[in-house]
Amino acid sequence: MHVFDAAAVHAALPWPFLIEALRKAHLGEMPASDVVVQSDPTGGEAQFVTLPGWAPGGPIVVKMVGVFPHNASLKPPQPAVQGLVALFDGKTGGPLLVADGAAMTARKTAADSALGAALLSREDAEDLLIVGAGALAPHFAEAHLAARPSLRRVMIWNRTVARAEAVAAQLREKGIDAAVTGDVDGATARADIVSCVTMSDTALIKGALLRPGTHLDLVGAYLPTLREADDAALTRGAIFVDNRNNMQGGGDLSQAVASGAITWDAVKADLFELVRGERKGRTGADQITVFKNNGGAHLDLFTASALSQTLG
Amino acid sequence: MHVFDAAAVHAALPWPFLIEALRKAHLGEMPASDVVVQSDPTGGEAQFVTLPGWAPGGPIVVKMVGVFPHNASLKPPQPAVQGLVALFDGKTGGPLLVADGAAMTARKTAADSALGAALLSREDAEDLLIVGAGALAPHFAEAHLAARPSLRRVMIWNRTVARAEAVAAQLREKGIDAAVTGDVDGATARADIVSCVTMSDTALIKGALLRPGTHLDLVGAYLPTLREADDAALTRGAIFVDNRNNMQGGGDLSQAVASGAITWDAVKADLFELVRGERKGRTGADQITVFKNNGGAHLDLFTASALSQTLG
Repeated sequence: MHVFDAAAVHAALPWPFLIEALRKAHLGEMPASDVVVQSDPTGGEAQFVTLPGWAPGGPIVVKMVGVFPHNASLKPPQPAVQGLVALFDGKTGGPLLVADGAAMTARKTAADSALGAALLSREDAEDLLIVGAGALAPHFAEAHLAARPSLRRVMIWNRTVARAEAVAAQLREKGIDAAVTGDVDGATARADIVSCVTMSDTALIKGALLRPGTHLDLVGAYLPTLREADDAALTRGAIFVDNRNNMQGGGDLSQAVASGAITWDAVKADLFELVRGERKGRTGADQITVFKNNGGAHLDLFTASALSQTLG
Repeated sequence: MHVFDAAAVHAALPWPFLIEALRKAHLGEMPASDVVVQSDPTGGEAQFVTLPGWAPGGPIVVKMVGVFPHNASLKPPQPAVQGLVALFDGKTGGPLLVADGAAMTARKTAADSALGAALLSREDAEDLLIVGAGALAPHFAEAHLAARPSLRRVMIWNRTVARAEAVAAQLREKGIDAAVTGDVDGATARADIVSCVTMSDTALIKGALLRPGTHLDLVGAYLPTLREADDAALTRGAIFVDNRNNMQGGGDLSQAVASGAITWDAVKADLFELVRGERKGRTGADQITVFKNNGGAHLDLFTASALSQTLG
């Protein structure tokens, strides 16, 4: 059995390889998966989530992830979300690999959005705006650059400017043309691809400002109470999701449905339908496309399977 | 995070250490645990079982185990049961260790019975009979010798004699006085402790033959259709179980209840009650004690916690 720590996970899954692995995986069936959420038995806020999944004819994966909101206040601080992903041979049950959970989550989440951008964004997109400067932000910048090589520049906006500066510096070290903007509205109006990776509970992206042809990627609002883009973004754009089974959990679409701005019928396709060619993606250079990334255990399985391919 | 392969699991958990760790763990609460059983999505016989548990104020453990009946016919053959145990810090969710599942299961199962024998068998027990010669048999011999140091001799009986010979030879290499018997009835009548670790579906132990004072350990009959000891063994003996929550699954007690030989009220105590002194164990040198070991996810958690203590 192989063990991949965080650095080994990132090294083993270059973006072009992982994006293509996810694309191919979406040609197959959605794996069967379960979820067990356990709360701290002493009554604390912490939760531990276990997600076992089994791909038909493929491997078995178990994602185990702790969500401990108070970890940031520990001395030294620890990430709130930590865990492991374990992969087993679907023909024997034998353990194949164990991988750092936070790195796997970062990798699969960014590659999921990057696959969406590869399928939906304009082929001549040049300007990428990343909204948010948390741990995932640099991964989202790099994954989009891999998915759409025409991109020339990355702008970073974040409520706390110093963190945006840190992400931009980190990207520049890798030779990427990255800069910080203090004007999210202006940057929204200039970008060809906007990727939102925040914990915002109010819309940061005004749909009225989006240029025709822009691709809007929404990642952060994974709870019904969170929101990254306003109703206008959803009514102006053609809406896509990563998978229909999971699309009602996040706030962007569910709040827009609740307000009456859209109905669930507005969702044109998910990644399975797009990859298989069952439904159309972008229909013209002036169309605004919106991709809501809700994630899911199947992406852990697809990503762990890709990791197992690197074992040779 | 530390990784324990099978050899490292066995080396890190010497029997006296593990038996004492299990004893202390039974002073605390039964951990909250869940179980997810997934069947091969292509319709095969194989199953994959995921058991997450969380001890109040303690660690989180996830046991992952594949049950693949056809592994024995593979070339080369593989064990039918394989898997992993992962342990996480209950205060942060951070991964602490991953350990070979088969070795952890062997270790916890034998130590569970050994704790039963330590609490229930006569202190002057000298003769141990092991019934069955599968992978667990040598572990059960060694664990009982550690739990009851007065034991002088080990007899092994198995339907296939050659496998009993192999287990006896393995024990003799460790300096243990071990021999094979072809006469299970005669050996039953001579033994002070009888430990049954079989997959038998008919009773191998005749209760009428048990000597007063014998301790009978029943491990194998984990399904309602399996059976190791007859009704007479259960009516002559004082019955104990490892935990009451799990006691109705195995065939020995459930078939004896179904036949009317005993009622569930015949179960005098479980390990939690015995360790805490809430209920009595053996009440005299002539009493026959019967311990039904049904296992459970809490023992995986206790054993993984013991393993984490070795990390220092």
